[in-house]
Formats: sequence, C-alpha cells, structure tokens
Amino acid sequence: MINEGYKAMLGGKSVIRELSEYATARGSEIGYDNVFDYSLGNPSVPCPPSFTEAMIDLYRTAEPVALHGYSPSLGIPSVRATIADSLNRRFGMDYTADYIFPTSGAAGALAHALRAVTKPGDEIITFAPYFPEYQPYVAGTGARLTIVPADTENFQINFAAFEAAMNPGVTTVLINTPNNPSGAVYSEETLKRLAGILTAKQAEYGHDIFLISDEPYREIVFDGGTQPYPSRFYDNTLSCYSWSKSLSLPGERIGYVAVNPRATDAKLIVPMCGQISRGTGHNCPSSSIQLAVAKVVDETSDLSVYETNMNLLYDALTSIGFDVVRPGGTFYIFPKALEGDANAFCMKAKEYDLILVPSNSFGVPGYFRMAYCIDTDKVRRSIPVLEKFAHEVYGL
Amino acid sequence: MINEGYKAMLGGKSVIRELSEYATARGSEIGYDNVFDYSLGNPSVPCPPSFTEAMIDLYRTAEPVALHGYSPSLGIPSVRATIADSLNRRFGMDYTADYIFPTSGAAGALAHALRAVTKPGDEIITFAPYFPEYQPYVAGTGARLTIVPADTENFQINFAAFEAAMNPGVTTVLINTPNNPSGAVYSEETLKRLAGILTAKQAEYGHDIFLISDEPYREIVFDGGTQPYPSRFYDNTLSCYSWSKSLSLPGERIGYVAVNPRATDAKLIVPMCGQISRGTGHNCPSSSIQLAVAKVVDETSDLSVYETNMNLLYDALTSIGFDVVRPGGTFYIFPKALEGDANAFCMKAKEYDLILVPSNSFGVPGYFRMAYCIDTDKVRRSIPVLEKFAHEVYGL
Repeated sequence: MINEGYKAMLGGKSVIRELSEYATARGSEIGYDNVFDYSLGNPSVPCPPSFTEAMIDLYRTAEPVALHGYSPSLGIPSVRATIADSLNRRFGMDYTADYIFPTSGAAGALAHALRAVTKPGDEIITFAPYFPEYQPYVAGTGARLTIVPADTENFQINFAAFEAAMNPGVTTVLINTPNNPSGAVYSEETLKRLAGILTAKQAEYGHDIFLISDEPYREIVFDGGTQPYPSRFYDNTLSCYSWSKSLSLPGERIGYVAVNPRATDAKLIVPMCGQISRGTGHNCPSSSIQLAVAKVVDETSDLSVYETNMNLLYDALTSIGFDVVRPGGTFYIFPKALEGDANAFCMKAKEYDLILVPSNSFGVPGYFRMAYCIDTDKVRRSIPVLEKFAHEVYGL
Repeated sequence: MINEGYKAMLGGKSVIRELSEYATARGSEIGYDNVFDYSLGNPSVPCPPSFTEAMIDLYRTAEPVALHGYSPSLGIPSVRATIADSLNRRFGMDYTADYIFPTSGAAGALAHALRAVTKPGDEIITFAPYFPEYQPYVAGTGARLTIVPADTENFQINFAAFEAAMNPGVTTVLINTPNNPSGAVYSEETLKRLAGILTAKQAEYGHDIFLISDEPYREIVFDGGTQPYPSRFYDNTLSCYSWSKSLSLPGERIGYVAVNPRATDAKLIVPMCGQISRGTGHNCPSSSIQLAVAKVVDETSDLSVYETNMNLLYDALTSIGFDVVRPGGTFYIFPKALEGDANAFCMKAKEYDLILVPSNSFGVPGYFRMAYCIDTDKVRRSIPVLEKFAHEVYGL
C-alpha cells in the first residue's frame, strides 16, 4: 500500500545520473583521470573565498539563536531586499523585497512558480532542447508539458513550431536561458519576439499567459556578452534563479523566484509561494545560507575556465568535423551525433572512455551533451581521444 | 489566472503567526520585555558550540567544490550512515544508511513520508491536540485528515474514539510525541496499545496501515525520562525527525525520515522519497549542514531551561486554579481556558500583554497553548500577571 505512482517512477532513473555513476565506477578501475567524464553539470571551480569568509563570520559573530532561528515563511526580509536591489541595479528592474521569494535552488523556485500560476490540467509549453527535470516539476503540479521542437540552426526559439503549438489551454511558457543543454543565450530579438507573441495570445485568449524563466546560468556568458533579462521584455514573468552555478554552491540549495511587479496579481504571488511551501514541506532555505549569499550577492566564482574549455572543445569538435552550434554561455555544448541514434553513438563513445549524454531526454534526437565543467587539462587530453573515436568508428 | 486554490489560502493566516506578529508590534510600543509572548515555538537556547565549530571547521578545511557540490539525491551517504548508527545505538534499531532520507526539517520529512505511503483520496488519522500544519501537509498529498478527539485526562490517545474512527479507508496514522501542544509523552503502554490496534486492523482490512511518527521534541523529556521510540513497537513506521529543537537550528531546515527496515516495501521507500523530491523541488537539505549535524549527531543544546520553565509555570497555573495536565516534555503547556470560548479567553489575556494561543486550531476547544521557550526571568515575571488576569477577569 505504498504509493504506486512514486513506486513506478523508481524504474525511470536519470540517464545523466547513470552515466555519471558509470564514469565513477570506471574511474575506480582505470583511474578517474583516464575517464573523460562529460556527464554531470556540477561546477568545477570553487566558490569565491568571500562566500566562505561571510559564512565563517556569521558563525563566529552572530548570536546563534537569531542566526539559526526560523526564517519568516516568505524568507528573511533583509535578504529579499538585497536581492531586489541587486536585480534592480543590474537589470534596471524595480523589484522590492515583496516580489522576491528565496527558495532551495532553481528546482525549488520552479516548483513554486509553476504551482503559483497553473492549475491541474493546464498546458505548459517549453522549448527543446530542455532540462529533463522539467518533466517531474510539471508532473508535480498536475499540469502537462508540451515540448516545442528545437530550432537546430542556432537553438534560439523555433517560432513557427511555437505558434503552431499555442492554444487557449496554454497558461504558462517555460524558458531556460542560457540554455542547458545547448549553451544558447536567447538574444534580445528572441525575447522581444516571444513577448510579442505572448502579449498577442493573451489578448486573443482573454487570459494571462505567464512566462517562467529559468536562469541559473545567467552569469556564465561568453565573449564578454550578457544575458538580456527576460522579465524586462514581458510583464507576466517569474524569474527563477539559483546560485548553484554562479557561486558554485549546488549542494547548498539556494535561489529565488523574482516576480515582475507589473505581473497580474504580482503582490499575491510571493505570499502564495509561502502557502505552496506549507504543502510541500519546503519552509524556506537555510537561514545562515540566505544571510551568507546576501553578503556576496553580486559576486561569482572565477567562471573563466568554462569559456576556456568551451573554446578548446568547440574548435576541436569543428575541426574533427562535428556539426556544432557555438555556445554563447553555460558549461554545456550540444553537437550533432555522428549517427542518427544518439544512444548508440554515446554507447560507442563509452568504449573510448568518453562519457557523453545522448540528447533524447532533452527532447531532440540525434545530438549529445558534453558538460565541460571539468579541468582544462582533461579537456585537452580528451581531444585526441575524440579524434581517435571519430576516426576509427565514423571514418572522420 | 494565478492558481485560485493557493490564492484562497491567503485568507487563512496562522493564528500563531498573527499572535507572534502582534507581540512584536506591541513590544515596539511598550518594550518587548514587557510583552509575555508565549506564542511561538522557536528555541530560546543557543545551538551547542560544537555545531558552530563543526561548521566553521568544514568551511575552513574542506575543499569547497566537494563541500558545496550536489548531494546525491538520497542524501550524503556518510551522513545517512551516521544517523542510522546513532538511532541503532540509542533505540536498539537496525537501520542502515539505506533507510535514512535527509530532509529539510520535520516539515520536509512529513511531506515526503505522507506522499510515500498514501495516495489521493486516502484517509489519514491523527489525534487531537495536533500541530495545525498537518492540515496543509496532508492537503498537499490529496489525502484527507481525520482528527480523533483528545483524551483530555492526560493527552495520551483516546482509544475508544480512535477505534470508532477506524475504517478500511485509513491507510496512515500520524502521531506526534512528545506532543505539540499538550507536552504529553506517549508512554510505552500507549504505543503498545496503538500498535496492537493497527496490527489487528491491518489483518482485518487486508492492507497495510503505516504509522508516521513526528518526533522533533524527542530529546526534550522531563524528570529524567525518555521518549519510548515508536518504531520499536510497530514495524510499518516512518519516523520523522528535525534537529530544529534538539540543536536549536529551526532556520537551518535539517531533519530526516527513518524507515523501519521491517516495514512493507521498506527498501523502496527512501528511493521513492527521492522521486517525490523531484516533483516538489526539494532536492536534499544543504550539503554543508548535513555534514555539520552528522558531526554532532548525539548532542543537544542545553535543554534544561525548558524543564525549569515548565515547573515554574505548572506550579503557578495550578496554584492559580487552572486545570492543567503536567507536560512530560516539549516546551509547551496546554491548560484549560477559564471560559468555554478559548478565543475570547486569549483576547482578554492580550489586554494584560499575555500572548496565549487559543486551542481551536489544535483540534480541541476550550484550551490554550503557552510556548515557554523564553527566558526564565520573563516566565517568573509573567506569573503575577497571570494571577492578576485570572483574578480580575475570572475572580480566581
């Protein structure tokens, strides 16, 4: 009499997680240095020392009962105000603390945001390639997820397919930029065009369409570029963030939802997130970690290694003969596989100790993802192996 | 088009939270020292210095990428093993790491445990007086909560009412011992009798009935006593714990579910909790806090002040003429109000700056809760005020 629905989910293990476990096991056989493990999106650079010092300072000097006391159910007011100020300064927004809801990472942010603006039976649209965990986040709300096929030219939005998919049942559109797995950074042009369509469809359908924008890679943008801030272009936007990547703190589970003050019922959404938390047992991220990230809110880890790795891999893959779109950000690259069946391709790569993730679970057939948040030395050493694999198996 | 269900919940603010906010506001008028704020169950003693040192040591010495990296989705293996060993040592259990699921406090533990063993439409039974947040936890699962009336003689279980309420739709029974708000510590006799009934009803109905045991006050037991460990008496038990009270860390959101290894499908329940997390966006408590509590797993704050406060209040209330059951643990006491309408009683007490919580939301009419996790000096100073209030308003 345990819950049969969750029991049935036990079969569906994450492909990425399985590959990562294989890489670890293989590493214990041949030395992990010899496994070119491009499976997991776990940051490879340390958090900034300022975060460590902020935390130690809090533990050394703050009064423990206050430091570790219950955070108010909507988050610590000073932390919320600090986040609002930072976003206003950086992106020209006009948030106040009332529009910021601290969460346990982007996963928590998305789980709250999705519940706040959808109801069971609603349709949520997202764009391939997409982060596979969107499926359980959406399933948990009782809504259903529709995947718009990718624009494989540049991994911006396939607008023709999007407009064909739109219908009055759609209440939410979910984007992820910079994008996991493609590395695409949605341009201002893309975001404006998306906003234009959503605005027109709201008028046509006579109801709100919310944009949920998943932005954990916001600060990892290459060539000196920046990610245009999606909420600037469309009022009904909930921005979901995590410090997992920018501060290299994925295990600390800290992020937020930022509600555009001009969204419909904007003032209600954060208090509603507080109510949603009561049912999911979330009840705020750790109080000391809320306070510590607020002290380093505008800082990042040294993210330059990701750009170094991207350039090495992009040049190597291109010169080998792969069809690949140059990533604008993140620590992922998403080349076309050398045969139509991405699973078969990645299985063959495994024989060379190249751990690549097939694209099927990202909603695009025939591609693969490499997470290059690894040592640059290993990236360099993997290049002749990639060459050998492509030559021996595919004659390149 | 925001979610109307969550929007409707915005009306239903927590009575406890409202009283606490009133107390804070009143404190800024007359000085918080002059407000006898018995509203909130926020620990008033600091965490042990060993926790602070463990955390600082981790931040000073651990490699940041490893310390702050993603925790495995079922929690950090060494932390899970440490918790299992501690429970085995203290309560004669035979857990292994496989049966322990770290969570964001008891709220997270209950939210996961309830989802794991119920399905929408199931009936869950709990016993008055009960923690009001059980309502949203259960609502979040799609099951429904039935409240068995209190045994007001001693706040153990009202077994006659329980047996009358049992029916084949009940799949889970939820207990809380030591109990918030009554302070009752369920005796071995109570737990054995409960186990006997559940075992008989499982046979009669031909299906499992799980016991979810909410135990955040496990270490706060008075008169040198201990809380008998409920899972010892009934195999189908999921024990939900939080270090919020024992280590005074409510804001850090750290606890666990411990699944009795002899429960039906015991080996599946923790992996199912991992799947449940994917939909709620929980994804493990903070990695550094998991590691730090594991280093002080058998320690507690200096909890003796709660017993000191309880004795002062119990003696004072009794001598004033209140009808009150002596608490066996927690930091709550639950006397009978001096009139039938507990709300009216607590409103009148507010005029004396006595902030008492009416019992209605705990499922028992005509009582009130005092959370005496406050300075002993303030407890002492509140006694003449309680006397004056009872005398002037009720002629005692």
